[in-house]
Amino acid sequence: MRVSQLLLPTLREVPAEAEVISHRLLLRAGFMRKAAAGIYTLLPLAWRVILKIERIIREELDRQGGQEIMMPIMQPAELWQESGRWDVYGPELFRLKDRHGRDFCLGPTHEEIITALVRGEVNSYKQLPLLLYQIQNKYRDERRPRFGLMRGREFIMKDLYSFDRDEAGLDVSYNKMFEAYTNVFRRCGLQFRPVVADSGAIGGSDTHEFMVLAESGEATIVYCTDEQCGYAANEERAEAVPPAEKDDAAALEPKKVHTPDCRTMAEVATFFKISPARMIKTIIYTTEKETVAAMVRGDREINEIKLYNALDCIRLEMAGEETVRKATGASAGYAGPVNLTGVRLVADPEVMALANAVCGANENDHHLVNINPGRDFTPDLVTDIRLVKAGEPCPVCGTALQGARGIEVGQIFKLGDKYSKALGATFLDENGKARPFIMGCYGIGVTRTMAAAVEQNHDERGIIWPVQIAPFHVIVVPVSHKDQNLMETAEKIYHALNRAGVESVVDDRPDRAGVKFNDADLVGYPIRITVGAKGLAAGKVELYLRRQGETIMVPLDEVVETVKAKLQVMGH
Amino acid sequence: MRVSQLLLPTLREVPAEAEVISHRLLLRAGFMRKAAAGIYTLLPLAWRVILKIERIIREELDRQGGQEIMMPIMQPAELWQESGRWDVYGPELFRLKDRHGRDFCLGPTHEEIITALVRGEVNSYKQLPLLLYQIQNKYRDERRPRFGLMRGREFIMKDLYSFDRDEAGLDVSYNKMFEAYTNVFRRCGLQFRPVVADSGAIGGSDTHEFMVLAESGEATIVYCTDEQCGYAANEERAEAVPPAEKDDAAALEPKKVHTPDCRTMAEVATFFKISPARMIKTIIYTTEKETVAAMVRGDREINEIKLYNALDCIRLEMAGEETVRKATGASAGYAGPVNLTGVRLVADPEVMALANAVCGANENDHHLVNINPGRDFTPDLVTDIRLVKAGEPCPVCGTALQGARGIEVGQIFKLGDKYSKALGATFLDENGKARPFIMGCYGIGVTRTMAAAVEQNHDERGIIWPVQIAPFHVIVVPVSHKDQNLMETAEKIYHALNRAGVESVVDDRPDRAGVKFNDADLVGYPIRITVGAKGLAAGKVELYLRRQGETIMVPLDEVVETVKAKLQVMGH
Repeated sequence: MRVSQLLLPTLREVPAEAEVISHRLLLRAGFMRKAAAGIYTLLPLAWRVILKIERIIREELDRQGGQEIMMPIMQPAELWQESGRWDVYGPELFRLKDRHGRDFCLGPTHEEIITALVRGEVNSYKQLPLLLYQIQNKYRDERRPRFGLMRGREFIMKDLYSFDRDEAGLDVSYNKMFEAYTNVFRRCGLQFRPVVADSGAIGGSDTHEFMVLAESGEATIVYCTDEQCGYAANEERAEAVPPAEKDDAAALEPKKVHTPDCRTMAEVATFFKISPARMIKTIIYTTEKETVAAMVRGDREINEIKLYNALDCIRLEMAGEETVRKATGASAGYAGPVNLTGVRLVADPEVMALANAVCGANENDHHLVNINPGRDFTPDLVTDIRLVKAGEPCPVCGTALQGARGIEVGQIFKLGDKYSKALGATFLDENGKARPFIMGCYGIGVTRTMAAAVEQNHDERGIIWPVQIAPFHVIVVPVSHKDQNLMETAEKIYHALNRAGVESVVDDRPDRAGVKFNDADLVGYPIRITVGAKGLAAGKVELYLRRQGETIMVPLDEVVETVKAKLQVMGH
Repeated sequence: MRVSQLLLPTLREVPAEAEVISHRLLLRAGFMRKAAAGIYTLLPLAWRVILKIERIIREELDRQGGQEIMMPIMQPAELWQESGRWDVYGPELFRLKDRHGRDFCLGPTHEEIITALVRGEVNSYKQLPLLLYQIQNKYRDERRPRFGLMRGREFIMKDLYSFDRDEAGLDVSYNKMFEAYTNVFRRCGLQFRPVVADSGAIGGSDTHEFMVLAESGEATIVYCTDEQCGYAANEERAEAVPPAEKDDAAALEPKKVHTPDCRTMAEVATFFKISPARMIKTIIYTTEKETVAAMVRGDREINEIKLYNALDCIRLEMAGEETVRKATGASAGYAGPVNLTGVRLVADPEVMALANAVCGANENDHHLVNINPGRDFTPDLVTDIRLVKAGEPCPVCGTALQGARGIEVGQIFKLGDKYSKALGATFLDENGKARPFIMGCYGIGVTRTMAAAVEQNHDERGIIWPVQIAPFHVIVVPVSHKDQNLMETAEKIYHALNRAGVESVVDDRPDRAGVKFNDADLVGYPIRITVGAKGLAAGKVELYLRRQGETIMVPLDEVVETVKAKLQVMGH
């Protein structure tokens, strides 16, 4: 295409509404425009990126035996009522009625539709496993849609559902998807990590999130720096290494100490001149069933996801001042496990390894010293409830963990029989016995992947597309549109590149070279070819590599080969 | 793929709900399943067909300079209010509210969105022409969805919008789309005709429908049998050839004749022993403005679309008994133009060419004879208002027209400045003057094209896919799954074909050969390769060509080449 004909409306100004990098750059570079809050039109260059991502996804899923289908976006309420989700899904579900008053929703996900489909069409174990997927618009009525494509109300997802006869089969399907996802994001040219994520249930590593690494990422992850090990987890899910051994110091006599105005760990540590690592941090929570005192070492933080899972509750909230006073007899900041009755005590293993520790006395302005867990209090439950941070040892190999921020672009998840049981979807096994399908679900945010690619690949001048998903590989820029020779040479190079399969545009606009260079940097073409009078006099043009920042002069008759070689090095 | 692993649930029974061939066959052959009334899940084989059609569309539109984008399905009401369509669209528009109570609709079409987009991003004539398109789900809340994919509520459309600086530019864009559509349907392997269609306005041939020819088609078209001429039109739009000359018989004296029980043209013709071609058929209509007497020759039928356009009215209805009596003083069947006052007289040119004709006397049981138009009555308007039928001369070249039935799969349409004016979308012309964009819109029903392909290509045993859009080219069928040799040979052929780029499946199910053959015919693979013991003993397999009904024995080592040659002949 010629840039003069492309719908590629670049902007000088940063749109006020855009808070994150990808949102700002995709608007500024002319990749998309807002149609309504959280709803966008993707312009030609964005759509080229999306088609490339979709193609990679299709190839990798088909390679694993995936079968592509297309389910409706408009879903009848009846199926959601059968699964029980119609009433619990809440205001994020877009709902509508047809002209006859029947209820529908716009699918945020398709477990109901696919389970009902397979229930009707698959009845023998011989037809399993089955991997069915689609690439399609999804809908979620976010209360506050923002961040452009990162949290929209209408967005493109790939969703795949696996159907197996048993858990062993599900493991196989899950591993296939793990491999497919790894290939997809690698082939998209992205730096990413699959991380163990929280599945909302105790134990098991039955869900992974695929995180594109980016400083602006909304999630914190930790990963092992030992490449061989490869352990990586969402911070909220990372397992703590249990303490090697208990502190074997002789147990001293407990004592209550007046600690005026010492409410924080830091204040107490300063008061006693000890490390917070020798203190017990006690936080009071409430669930729908009980009041809980959760304990971690004074230098640690409680991981509420782990605590939530450990308590097997529906609702977990940090207790308010009033509840804390009722439960402990003191203000928050003076809670401690000793003589605390009517409250469930949950301790992290590290707490149990302490000797002669300091904790709150359940009395305002007082702490206890020389507290020895097991002697002075006995927890109801000892389990890993703390947040793991960068620098701690890897739970698998012991190497120090590294921290990073990431953007979730995919998740793979073992559903088990949740939906097949709810919807009565069964098959006959080898013995003719009806059994529920064992399911998995696997999502990739397609538009989100494009946005994440921008978050990861940009500089102050604009986007730097990975060559694998770049909308075009090359832009050819004649530095003056008034010089016929430059224009003709640019046209020739442009045609030669396209004939050679290099996706190229030529910037034929009657604008100054500076404007064109700025736009080229903003849009993020991997290679810019500058056709200038001086170079041309020597029979050369300039190749500028956007990511590398390199500039090389190339003889005219070597342009195509050089570009192809450079693109190949870049990963094309 | 192996058929045992494919989600391809063929049915023995014809589903009760399915009325038309494509609906029946696409359900029976396992291509789709209903999710709700007029809403379907497309299963793997259907989706393969859709992807092929989409690919052809993309290639042909891109070749014409089309730029693919993706607009939202969920559209804000504000834009529809701006264009005025929010209030007039009626119950076919799916409407919904978001969590904040704001109104949205599910797009049945995207004129508003695209016009608002271009209004904001394009401001100079230098950026024109612009051809923007998308392939996407569309929504229409049909009162009675039926016929499967032929009249669904959720369906896939390609919609393209052209933006030009003037009518001449629009002509160019329109012709590009005419060419693109012609190529698309030809490359889909379909028999079709572009026909002049009704644009809802007087005159001009500014809309064409692309009709896939099929006996089951809902539309009647007429087309010129002279290939050079190529005239074709929707029956309701076909132009009548004006009568060559007026009947020059000497005008006789008018006379009223008692014609008891002669209410139909046939009865009157029999009574007078004349041809209906010598009579005037008069039908009373009402519009929101007036009562109208429409006249055609007794052997003709009124084309209400033409009449509607000629009257420039909003509403046109055939008058009821009461209105007819009020207007004519007699029952329907005795209406005539002579001395008919307070009624607008509209006559077809053929009526004016009659001499000494017979017409109703506006008195029960009476007709007038020897009526001479111009002498005995003077119409307010003489214009073509009759239906043109097969056998009549072509209005362009005079050759006899042929009749056919068709299914509309595409339409191209000149919009002019309707939407750009309504939404204030202007550009600056060469003189810096703001002018509204001159637009065209161009649609292809993608799912409908698949259904139309089935309506056109099938027999009593199932679908016969055109090779260009067949979900797979070849099915390899070992006649017994118990014979290891047959199974292995079938597998080998299957792999060899796929390696050679021939899209193949192997029917590895433990079923009888008859079941497999029936399924293969039903699904409609262009080529079936049968691997049987007898043939194999002679080193041969059987090639069965689904459309041709031919069977040939082919040596094993020539299978791939023979299949490729046959597919090429078929149009691949």
